[in-house]
Amino acid sequence: MIKIVVDLMGADKPANELVSGAIKAINENKDLTVVLCAKEEVILPVLDTLTYNKEQVEIVNCTEEITNNDIPTKAFRKKPDSSLVKGLNICKNDPLAGGFVSCGSTGAVLVSSMFILGRIGEVRPCLACLLLGNDGEFLISDCGANVDCKPEQIVDFAKMGVAYMKAKGIENPRVRLLSNGAEEKKGPDAIKEAHQMLKASGLNFLGNVEGKDILASTCDVVAADGFGGNTVIKTIEGTAKALFMDLLAKAKASTSEAEALVLKKTVKELMAKYDYNTLGGANLLGVTKPVIKGHGAGEAETFYNMIKEAYALAKGNMIGIMEKLLTE
Amino acid sequence: MIKIVVDLMGADKPANELVSGAIKAINENKDLTVVLCAKEEVILPVLDTLTYNKEQVEIVNCTEEITNNDIPTKAFRKKPDSSLVKGLNICKNDPLAGGFVSCGSTGAVLVSSMFILGRIGEVRPCLACLLLGNDGEFLISDCGANVDCKPEQIVDFAKMGVAYMKAKGIENPRVRLLSNGAEEKKGPDAIKEAHQMLKASGLNFLGNVEGKDILASTCDVVAADGFGGNTVIKTIEGTAKALFMDLLAKAKASTSEAEALVLKKTVKELMAKYDYNTLGGANLLGVTKPVIKGHGAGEAETFYNMIKEAYALAKGNMIGIMEKLLTE
Repeated sequence: MIKIVVDLMGADKPANELVSGAIKAINENKDLTVVLCAKEEVILPVLDTLTYNKEQVEIVNCTEEITNNDIPTKAFRKKPDSSLVKGLNICKNDPLAGGFVSCGSTGAVLVSSMFILGRIGEVRPCLACLLLGNDGEFLISDCGANVDCKPEQIVDFAKMGVAYMKAKGIENPRVRLLSNGAEEKKGPDAIKEAHQMLKASGLNFLGNVEGKDILASTCDVVAADGFGGNTVIKTIEGTAKALFMDLLAKAKASTSEAEALVLKKTVKELMAKYDYNTLGGANLLGVTKPVIKGHGAGEAETFYNMIKEAYALAKGNMIGIMEKLLTE
Repeated sequence: MIKIVVDLMGADKPANELVSGAIKAINENKDLTVVLCAKEEVILPVLDTLTYNKEQVEIVNCTEEITNNDIPTKAFRKKPDSSLVKGLNICKNDPLAGGFVSCGSTGAVLVSSMFILGRIGEVRPCLACLLLGNDGEFLISDCGANVDCKPEQIVDFAKMGVAYMKAKGIENPRVRLLSNGAEEKKGPDAIKEAHQMLKASGLNFLGNVEGKDILASTCDVVAADGFGGNTVIKTIEGTAKALFMDLLAKAKASTSEAEALVLKKTVKELMAKYDYNTLGGANLLGVTKPVIKGHGAGEAETFYNMIKEAYALAKGNMIGIMEKLLTE
């Protein structure tokens, strides 16, 4: 049995609107237990209306909430009875706890996770985002937690990404390095050095990838420094948004109602694919348990997706694989 | 009268398939002359079939061609009778010459331009790409000529971009700085320093821009180090390509012929907007004349667009504005 700890507070929506996502997840997985961290009085009335196996739910009453107004580096000390702090402590101390998910304040989730769960060895944790390419999922690691990275850090981001994809069932994940050219001599000094180190790393390294091929599914893990990775995921989001606006403008300008309908329907169907928030959230890699941080605007479905993802990572022994790769 | 020097060789297509683009440009602008650099025997038969004012065309016979197989740093010495070298020399020495356009080898065009035309003062030249946002054109500068940039270089990229947009008629171009967050404290050290310098530069600086807002037309010039700028333009291209593939896949899978037609037509209409090659090519800024380098796969229409753009930059006195901004 695997427990996933769910921080239902700190998001834009109140916990009572989010909790059904957790119930959906346990109803699909009999060996999954969710540890729901929230104000009891807020979630109990909703839980009463749902059908599920009570043995798969633990409720942790939390009286405090950490918000975007709290200073990330101080919040976890100042609010010990918050869902974030209580949840992370359970995640750390319960041997059955396999991961933690939250849509709370990004800074607070990252700082508190690093402080409470601790890092794997001396590694610099990174943020990894799962995206959908033409041919399935792939991971970009780092997506913005670290800038001005040393080459060895970028190699660690690659290793942590590989552990993630291995846990998801990819046997020998293909790794590429984000650069501004396909040739190994292209890129800033740190990227060129990382290229050489990746070549010698024993990972399944296939060379550089440029922004134009990121979504072409030529690899399972894109290793990047946080500045480049962040630029990629945000540019994907922005480009898709701009293109959807073009499609909707065409729909509006069209004299054919049928054409307008086709365009609007298409936008609706494709939107989620290019929103890095909907898929699985951002993963904090390098701490001792899987931590997934969803968008503040996350909904019940976001929690469902994050819980499923954390469960898969725990089941696939991501942390064990990561520890091995990072110490090799 | 403004002369634009046109290097018709070194592209994937032969000069005879490209020359009509130059003729289209002069037929639209009575005070434009094109200096066509190519093998006479290749272009004369085509020119004979076209209608245009002979006084607006100068032909420079070139017996050599620089290709991607030539070493960029050596090509311009080894092939003095190439269209690239002869064209750049005319561009340098003819006081009426207002700019140079080519679809030849990128490395050779850049190196030869810097060597033959020379730089403006001590500035590090950059590559700037014109893109279409939701609300019109904007420029990203640098797009890949320089990595590991110093903050003062990034400020120069901004200034050169501003000169470009001023020449195009934007009175007080809005400048933003590419970073991995909107806040001024976000980003690598060089970007954070560049932010402070831009604030004090006297430019119309509006702060950082993230990848997700690049196409939202919140500025006229995006200042970036070459790694970030390159990542942005290539990710835009790749995302658009992936989305177009999704639309075409939907068209293929659709059981409704009308729906499939709408989707295919839409892709066709939007494709050019997200291809940074079609708009104006990449601009080499920081040399003493406007230089535009189009994609190797450029067609007659590419030359038409590049010539129009170079003509506009010459007419708008980009170089004069740039010299002033860079020495202020």
